Amino acid sequence: MKAEIIAVGTELLLGQVVNTNATFLSQELADLGIEVYYHTVVGDNPQRLEQLLVEAEERSDLIVLCGGLGPTDDDLTKDTVAAHIHHSLVQDEQALARLHDFFKFSKRSMTENNLRQTLMIEDGIPIQNPTGLAVGTLITKEDTTYLLLPGPPNELNPMFQQNVRPLLAARFPQAEQLISRVLRFYGIGESQLVTDLKELIDRQTNPTIAPYAKPNEVTLRLTAKVADEGLGQQLLDELEAKVMAKVGTYFYGYGDENSLVKVTVDALKKYGKTVTAAESLTAGLFQSTLGDITGVSEVFKGGFVTYSAETKAHFLGIDVKLLEKEGTISEACAIAMAERARIVADADYAVSFTGVAGPDELEGKPAGTVWIGFAEKGQSTIAVLQHFNRDRRSIRKSAVMKGLDLILRAVNKKN
Amino acid sequence: MKAEIIAVGTELLLGQVVNTNATFLSQELADLGIEVYYHTVVGDNPQRLEQLLVEAEERSDLIVLCGGLGPTDDDLTKDTVAAHIHHSLVQDEQALARLHDFFKFSKRSMTENNLRQTLMIEDGIPIQNPTGLAVGTLITKEDTTYLLLPGPPNELNPMFQQNVRPLLAARFPQAEQLISRVLRFYGIGESQLVTDLKELIDRQTNPTIAPYAKPNEVTLRLTAKVADEGLGQQLLDELEAKVMAKVGTYFYGYGDENSLVKVTVDALKKYGKTVTAAESLTAGLFQSTLGDITGVSEVFKGGFVTYSAETKAHFLGIDVKLLEKEGTISEACAIAMAERARIVADADYAVSFTGVAGPDELEGKPAGTVWIGFAEKGQSTIAVLQHFNRDRRSIRKSAVMKGLDLILRAVNKKN
Repeated sequence: MKAEIIAVGTELLLGQVVNTNATFLSQELADLGIEVYYHTVVGDNPQRLEQLLVEAEERSDLIVLCGGLGPTDDDLTKDTVAAHIHHSLVQDEQALARLHDFFKFSKRSMTENNLRQTLMIEDGIPIQNPTGLAVGTLITKEDTTYLLLPGPPNELNPMFQQNVRPLLAARFPQAEQLISRVLRFYGIGESQLVTDLKELIDRQTNPTIAPYAKPNEVTLRLTAKVADEGLGQQLLDELEAKVMAKVGTYFYGYGDENSLVKVTVDALKKYGKTVTAAESLTAGLFQSTLGDITGVSEVFKGGFVTYSAETKAHFLGIDVKLLEKEGTISEACAIAMAERARIVADADYAVSFTGVAGPDELEGKPAGTVWIGFAEKGQSTIAVLQHFNRDRRSIRKSAVMKGLDLILRAVNKKN
Repeated sequence: MKAEIIAVGTELLLGQVVNTNATFLSQELADLGIEVYYHTVVGDNPQRLEQLLVEAEERSDLIVLCGGLGPTDDDLTKDTVAAHIHHSLVQDEQALARLHDFFKFSKRSMTENNLRQTLMIEDGIPIQNPTGLAVGTLITKEDTTYLLLPGPPNELNPMFQQNVRPLLAARFPQAEQLISRVLRFYGIGESQLVTDLKELIDRQTNPTIAPYAKPNEVTLRLTAKVADEGLGQQLLDELEAKVMAKVGTYFYGYGDENSLVKVTVDALKKYGKTVTAAESLTAGLFQSTLGDITGVSEVFKGGFVTYSAETKAHFLGIDVKLLEKEGTISEACAIAMAERARIVADADYAVSFTGVAGPDELEGKPAGTVWIGFAEKGQSTIAVLQHFNRDRRSIRKSAVMKGLDLILRAVNKKN
């Protein structure tokens, strides 16, 4: 079962609107076991749309079109598809009744062009629109099925989920479904991860392994194509065990909606530990990243932004002579910051960040040079030297991730 | 000049990633006077990509491909295009040197597959990547120009703006050019701005006025289409004066790459003033927003994150009885936080943030309730009550913007 998605609208080609419909429809179709091979965007132009239909019919069983079902003259998707397959447009009575109700309720007067929205392709199945006025159509002609949906996501999404899914599931029952699992890794680059897993990736066909690089982390999506969910989970468990045997030391959590800060805050909560920070380089970014997580106040009470030598001395009580002797971008400074912050804030853990955000060098050290201090109650305080690439913002974000990693590893090790 | 954009990547067809590259590239190409007729997405499959190239060559002069320049085996855009036009891949020496520098600096070991990223298509023009490792190529064969760019937006965007725009502008000059100017507004919503300017927007054809709503601010892009740059600037000056007469009180700066924090830091620098903050609700976001700006250390020395009542008392010396009596989400607390932070950090200005980030209410106040304190040397400290909508992250960002606005207005008024 091969499908493709055609979005119609000049506003997409001008870059005024992002094609989130293609993303949504792809997720939904994957979920139904229908494979999507192409997305295309074309403007409000009947000739180019018709040419695209000719190409799409050659290669796909299901063509999903979105956009161009509205009331204005440039909404021509329905007319174009109907003419192309030699069908007429006919009134859908349910959509017409809804249109009249809508204008009656809102006490606005209905303009003639609104009637266009209630037309569907003759002999097709009308798709009612729970949140808008334009009716859709599902119609099969020869070997191709055409699905016409409106462009606004707030109409297309509920329409698909409520009214299209059941139709497609019944019409194209899949023997097999896709079951997937996302593993998240910190501290290893995509190229290294893929090298470490090369043999495994090359050998796997079902389940498959797909790596994806995000800023400062890499995810692996394991996907099994199976008839039975239980079997799918078992295959994923087996593959995950093989992946973990090779790169498990970098693994920190599961799922698309997860993050290193979320996992770290959860671990602190679980063991009833608190954290603080003294931030120079990152200027509060570490603490505000913690603040993104709901309920973080259980484990985070506050901390310091010490952007100058004076505030390092004044807020944290660090000896000015140490800063003068070692410099602020130094192991000694990072250690003093973490140690003093932990004591002043009376927390179980503290991290500190001092370094060069760039673009210029500082104290003779190039941009990207970062010392991260880590203090733990009852342990000696340490500092690690990092060299981050890229721009100012990336350097600071990379430092925050490393700080989270230090805490998470310590919490998991101790408990 | 007809162009089309082909994004390569199975993750797009699975709905795991939104195709924002097509949107960005469409805007940039429109700006260069190049019309985009199609967007297509295809998976990591050389046969399907090659078939698409055949179709694209029939209908377009410029084919922009993005994605598939990375280090792994499924990155095959370069190989496919090169084979299709019967060119080889060759090493780009500049990209190779950059790759070696990157791994040397970050002290990570380089894997063999990284070398793939430094290959370009023979006889093409290499496009250097300021924020990543994969080099791009611009190459013309017969009547078609191919532009190959990497998939990650944080690489593609700067690469296009810095290195592709000048090449395309020189190679495909347009008779009339678009001259545009962006005006930025804080403190007024898009619908209100458009209502205030309705007559002006409806009447204008050249230059045009395009409003665009961003989180917490609105921009207006004034665009003149002219043969002569001087005339264009004159038309924009005249239109800008009319816009300012109506909504000038909300204007804070010019340009796409500008921001309220940048303008605020510039104003502080200009008048030699310093700022600090005490952050509860925002947990360091205000200070880390300052930290985004290069050279902010001139005006920002440090500050406090006081996420609990204890740290408000302990770090800032606020009377615990006041917090108990008034609550921490109160005018009195915001005033005390700003006042004490300014004194402890010895700064000219201080802002404070205390409120409910949500999703749950706090101290009987609903999510979005925010008090922002503002202290200025020699003036009485004040606090303003705000009610922000949306989610946790948006509420905290909105609060930071309001804090910046308070400072900017004070600095501009006094000086």
